[in-house]
Amino acid sequence: MATYEAVTKSFSELSITHTTVTHTVVTDNKTWTNQLVTVAPPNITYHVTKTLVLKPKTAKTGPVTPVVVVALEETETPLAPLGKKLGFKEPRFANEELLQEVFGVNKDSVSPFALAHVKDLTHVHLVVDSALLAIPADHHIAFHPSAADKTSFISVAHLRAFFTHVRKDFIEVDFKALASEVGAPAPAKAEGSKKEATKKEDAVIEGAAQIGIEVRKELDFPKWYQQVLTKSEMLEYYDVSGCYILRPWAYNIWKEITAFFDAEIMELGVEDAYFPMFVSSKVLEREKDHIEGFAPEVAWVTKAGQSDLEEPVALRPTSETVMYPYFAKWIRSHRDLPLKLNQWCNVVRWEFKHPQPFLRTREFLWQEGHTAHLTKPEADVEVRQILSLYAQVYEDLLAVPVVQGVKSEKEKFAGGLYTTTVEGFIPTTGRGIQAGTSHCLGQNFSKMFNIVVEDPNAPANTTEEEAKKLFVWQNSWGLSTRAIGIMVMVHGDDKGLVLPPRVATIQAIVIPCGLTVKTTEEEKRKVEEVVNEVVKRLKKAGVKAKADLRENYTPGYKFNHWELRGVPLRLEIGPQDLKKSQVTSVRRDTGARSTIPLADVESSVPASLTTIQADMYARAKKQQVESIRRVDRWEDFVPALDEKKLVLIPWCDRGDCEENIKERSARSGTEGEEQDEKAPAMGAKSLCCPFDQPTENPIVPGVTKCVACGQDAKHHMLFGRSY
Amino acid sequence: MATYEAVTKSFSELSITHTTVTHTVVTDNKTWTNQLVTVAPPNITYHVTKTLVLKPKTAKTGPVTPVVVVALEETETPLAPLGKKLGFKEPRFANEELLQEVFGVNKDSVSPFALAHVKDLTHVHLVVDSALLAIPADHHIAFHPSAADKTSFISVAHLRAFFTHVRKDFIEVDFKALASEVGAPAPAKAEGSKKEATKKEDAVIEGAAQIGIEVRKELDFPKWYQQVLTKSEMLEYYDVSGCYILRPWAYNIWKEITAFFDAEIMELGVEDAYFPMFVSSKVLEREKDHIEGFAPEVAWVTKAGQSDLEEPVALRPTSETVMYPYFAKWIRSHRDLPLKLNQWCNVVRWEFKHPQPFLRTREFLWQEGHTAHLTKPEADVEVRQILSLYAQVYEDLLAVPVVQGVKSEKEKFAGGLYTTTVEGFIPTTGRGIQAGTSHCLGQNFSKMFNIVVEDPNAPANTTEEEAKKLFVWQNSWGLSTRAIGIMVMVHGDDKGLVLPPRVATIQAIVIPCGLTVKTTEEEKRKVEEVVNEVVKRLKKAGVKAKADLRENYTPGYKFNHWELRGVPLRLEIGPQDLKKSQVTSVRRDTGARSTIPLADVESSVPASLTTIQADMYARAKKQQVESIRRVDRWEDFVPALDEKKLVLIPWCDRGDCEENIKERSARSGTEGEEQDEKAPAMGAKSLCCPFDQPTENPIVPGVTKCVACGQDAKHHMLFGRSY
Repeated sequence: MATYEAVTKSFSELSITHTTVTHTVVTDNKTWTNQLVTVAPPNITYHVTKTLVLKPKTAKTGPVTPVVVVALEETETPLAPLGKKLGFKEPRFANEELLQEVFGVNKDSVSPFALAHVKDLTHVHLVVDSALLAIPADHHIAFHPSAADKTSFISVAHLRAFFTHVRKDFIEVDFKALASEVGAPAPAKAEGSKKEATKKEDAVIEGAAQIGIEVRKELDFPKWYQQVLTKSEMLEYYDVSGCYILRPWAYNIWKEITAFFDAEIMELGVEDAYFPMFVSSKVLEREKDHIEGFAPEVAWVTKAGQSDLEEPVALRPTSETVMYPYFAKWIRSHRDLPLKLNQWCNVVRWEFKHPQPFLRTREFLWQEGHTAHLTKPEADVEVRQILSLYAQVYEDLLAVPVVQGVKSEKEKFAGGLYTTTVEGFIPTTGRGIQAGTSHCLGQNFSKMFNIVVEDPNAPANTTEEEAKKLFVWQNSWGLSTRAIGIMVMVHGDDKGLVLPPRVATIQAIVIPCGLTVKTTEEEKRKVEEVVNEVVKRLKKAGVKAKADLRENYTPGYKFNHWELRGVPLRLEIGPQDLKKSQVTSVRRDTGARSTIPLADVESSVPASLTTIQADMYARAKKQQVESIRRVDRWEDFVPALDEKKLVLIPWCDRGDCEENIKERSARSGTEGEEQDEKAPAMGAKSLCCPFDQPTENPIVPGVTKCVACGQDAKHHMLFGRSY
Repeated sequence: MATYEAVTKSFSELSITHTTVTHTVVTDNKTWTNQLVTVAPPNITYHVTKTLVLKPKTAKTGPVTPVVVVALEETETPLAPLGKKLGFKEPRFANEELLQEVFGVNKDSVSPFALAHVKDLTHVHLVVDSALLAIPADHHIAFHPSAADKTSFISVAHLRAFFTHVRKDFIEVDFKALASEVGAPAPAKAEGSKKEATKKEDAVIEGAAQIGIEVRKELDFPKWYQQVLTKSEMLEYYDVSGCYILRPWAYNIWKEITAFFDAEIMELGVEDAYFPMFVSSKVLEREKDHIEGFAPEVAWVTKAGQSDLEEPVALRPTSETVMYPYFAKWIRSHRDLPLKLNQWCNVVRWEFKHPQPFLRTREFLWQEGHTAHLTKPEADVEVRQILSLYAQVYEDLLAVPVVQGVKSEKEKFAGGLYTTTVEGFIPTTGRGIQAGTSHCLGQNFSKMFNIVVEDPNAPANTTEEEAKKLFVWQNSWGLSTRAIGIMVMVHGDDKGLVLPPRVATIQAIVIPCGLTVKTTEEEKRKVEEVVNEVVKRLKKAGVKAKADLRENYTPGYKFNHWELRGVPLRLEIGPQDLKKSQVTSVRRDTGARSTIPLADVESSVPASLTTIQADMYARAKKQQVESIRRVDRWEDFVPALDEKKLVLIPWCDRGDCEENIKERSARSGTEGEEQDEKAPAMGAKSLCCPFDQPTENPIVPGVTKCVACGQDAKHHMLFGRSY
């Protein structure tokens, strides 16, 4: 019992007293949370929790089997899926009677420590949120123990010790995975539409105010995505189909990306230019393979004012054929090489498929780089330099992990030699997404457009005609506003957007709190003064900080407002904070609260932002790594996809085989149920051949066989359902 | 004779010896100039000169009347216009015989001081370039006196004393004005086309290499403009009419403008966004006055791939009607005001008039700001804040003076309340040009699009329906890439582009000089090392510096190359400079040379750039001020226009009168000769009512009459032929 005593001791040592808070076990703990801020010990990072007591349906004659669920406050804990997973029948919240009878507490005093009061623990189940157990060792967890005017702070180690003591076989549940299992397509049964309806209902977040997100990310992803984008004021739907308005909250992210990337390519000697958006059909159609790839989506201007144009002009879908006639003119000698141009512009691809904000739109913003080199090795080097910058945009700025690799012949850029790509991954749908591409065009376009130089190394006796035959090596590379969509999908949660600090327009929102009708004008003025002061100091320290001093809005409203918009850090300042010369900070990504001495904001806040950025990446990276499954038998291929994984397989690198994989993986599973090409049941495409090939069980030439067709495998290839 | 002796003395004191340079009086003195650099005394600023001896045609029996022309090296001195102006018949260069006979010098030793050798000065004319006499008192002027291995440095004061001594009635000629007089339209005579041909011939710059500008700015302005833009690599003509490629050299200027302006408007609380380029016809046509202004130029997309669109969509000519339906949606309360959005984008106006790069193009880049305010005073303030920023873009960044004022009813923005404008001026053509506009739209659009808020000051008993009736006050404002064209037209010269330092991609080009076949490898290496070192130090000091170390190109070629591209400052470093621990700097705008101690480049070069920027503005400002003529009688109106002036007149502010002025000023002068609407003979439009109204002879209400129609004048209005 030593362990238990230790826990009890540490628990009472750390427990603090505060105003009694009346709440039910199902509230979101907001009032309590807000109070805690003003009383929490300084310099600790803490996470708030909730404790639910459930009562599954049991035979009237049998014993009641209460279930105690201990979870992080922000963890979604839907009852039905939990019951289904653990075999509890129709779990409901326990009534007051049961709480008193079994735990000896009222509904305002439920905490895990109430388990210590239970005489017979045989029939009581303990379920613990795995996210709670994953909290770093130096953080604290806040509980309401046995009385509503006390809160305990306890470490994870102590908590685990306590749980082990009371119920060694406590059940750890990954609620996030649970939700996604529920959200996953049902096995093939002829009840699709009914299931879909149930799923949609489950998706509804109870009591979510209209300003907040009304559906769960894991359960109705398309609607969640739409709501996050519009309610966070990133995006507005527009009256021309497939077109969207990028509002400042989104456009600022694009500005951060352009500022970073533009500065980097300038260092590489690239120069920015601007070419016309209009392309004559003659020029557009010059390169056959290329235009075949784009023709069905090209928009044509045929009229100006009341007059028909003599010849229709196209709107650029990309600018290879716009630029290269001029490359031919400007490049007169090997001394003009390398020529490296880039432009930031809009392009138009009039897709007839279902449009999706950021991911598939008829007009979008991007940068397109176009360069010409004397030799292939030079071009090759640049292809990878640029790809690495794209990876940096995703990983360093957007905190989104990507896989770098080469596209298959089938998936490469129309008319190019080879395409390298950064591939993103959307865990919620289990689908890959092409996030940016850097193409080596080889000499294909230079031959079409006659971009030639004399060979500087030609023997002296070469005639000019002979020497002229050196076609330049070209690259093109593009990154678009799609990046913003990917970022939203990866990081957003049920409360809305979660922005990585590096691209957030506002990194820290400072909100006056704890002002009640009893607060004096003087106190209020003082709080607001400090709020303004802190913002000023933070700005000076390079933090994008803002005060929310709006009248007529409660702190709670403001919390929701900025959480919805994904502001990485919230700083709360109230009269109690002032007394302790501290501010309370709350992380958007984890919900973790901590207090910061007022004197330290210049160092603490930037440090927190750095931590948030790193943690967001680390979490997404962990999820991505766990979602790439190595598959050695075809039998495991489709099941892995159905589990929302990407698969890495030894592959023969043949177009036939790729087609075949797509067909075979599409036929499986929920055939017929999902009509949209983009639904999970669609066939898997090759995503890329990762540069980082597995070192464990590598391909043995002539021995390792292609998982799909059994021919000799050339390398490991990443396949997946994709956008 | 005291004065003369003083001159001779000072001249010999300062004269220095250098390697003999053989040249003719008509060379451009390049070799000499290059030599000078290495021998000039440190810390003096000097201007190099040329001395021409001409022999006009005279009666065989009469005396020869030689003309000595002393001018700055960079001053263009065309013989025919000079002869015409001064009444010298067919002036040619004097031959060696005449030089020896009259001046006692050979062709390599001509200098103004040769005049001292002339026995009888009666028949010798002395013509002095007014630009030379305008040189600041503390600068020096460099001459070749009587022997080719000597150069004198002399002050303007001394030179003037000498000239007055030898020929008190020496003739001061403003060669720039001379060239422009020749370039001005001929008085109405039925020989237009022949004159035009002669003019074009005069315009050709003799011996201009193909890489340089081949025509004089003052004589064939359109061709000059085209050549400057293309040869400086700012712009390339494109195969879709009315569209042009902005190459990096131009696009970088746009980047400088955007960086400045975007930062400034962020300070004003404006946020950047991006709205779609496509507009449905329904929305586009919502505001009738507005669309009437744009309809004839709207481009329509009617087809995508092979399919006709159900409904054609327009490409935005401007975004009022694109944005305002969403303003109506987003603005729900006075708390949402002011709403201030801006976007950087391309717009399309399919003009059928003669296109001109930067000034009139079918697609162009701009920013468009759109804001909504609760009250008119707030909107008014912002209109002027923005206009002031536009003035800063022109005056501070591009060194181009503008006049700020209000447009007439006829010239204001279609559908708006009033339009403020910054008006530029192109001295070479004498035409005004609208350089940027900031509109108050009033409540016109808010009424069309129903953008309303409740009146926050409404009495408590107001019903919601009544209170809802407050239509917001809106502004829109735009600045486009036209700014670049204006800058080129104002500052460029016969050598090409002249860039103000603040927007120059390269502010200082550093060129190794004085390396000959005799230079040792060690010396050469040392020079290049210092060149690189200087560039590195300058970059560290915030100067955009670049070394031109290209092999196989002479310094002269490089000088031309960078002069053509307008680089503000050239730094030359040769073995002689190293010996003296100095670099030689040459200003692009004035051609002035000076030497800088090598140790001082970090302070001297930025200081020079600041001076250049200020001087370029001051020169352009002086020219602008001199080109605005106050006119009190209609009889003086058209003659002033014909002298390439803008006219400021007391005006009645009536549309009828404005129409009338346009017609009457178009009918005059060279009627029939010039077909293009843009030719100088076109009618004058009102440009603006300047905010800065004259304080001398102001309008006396009821007394001062309109110059054009005799009705009561309301204010002074600026009229002019314009772009």
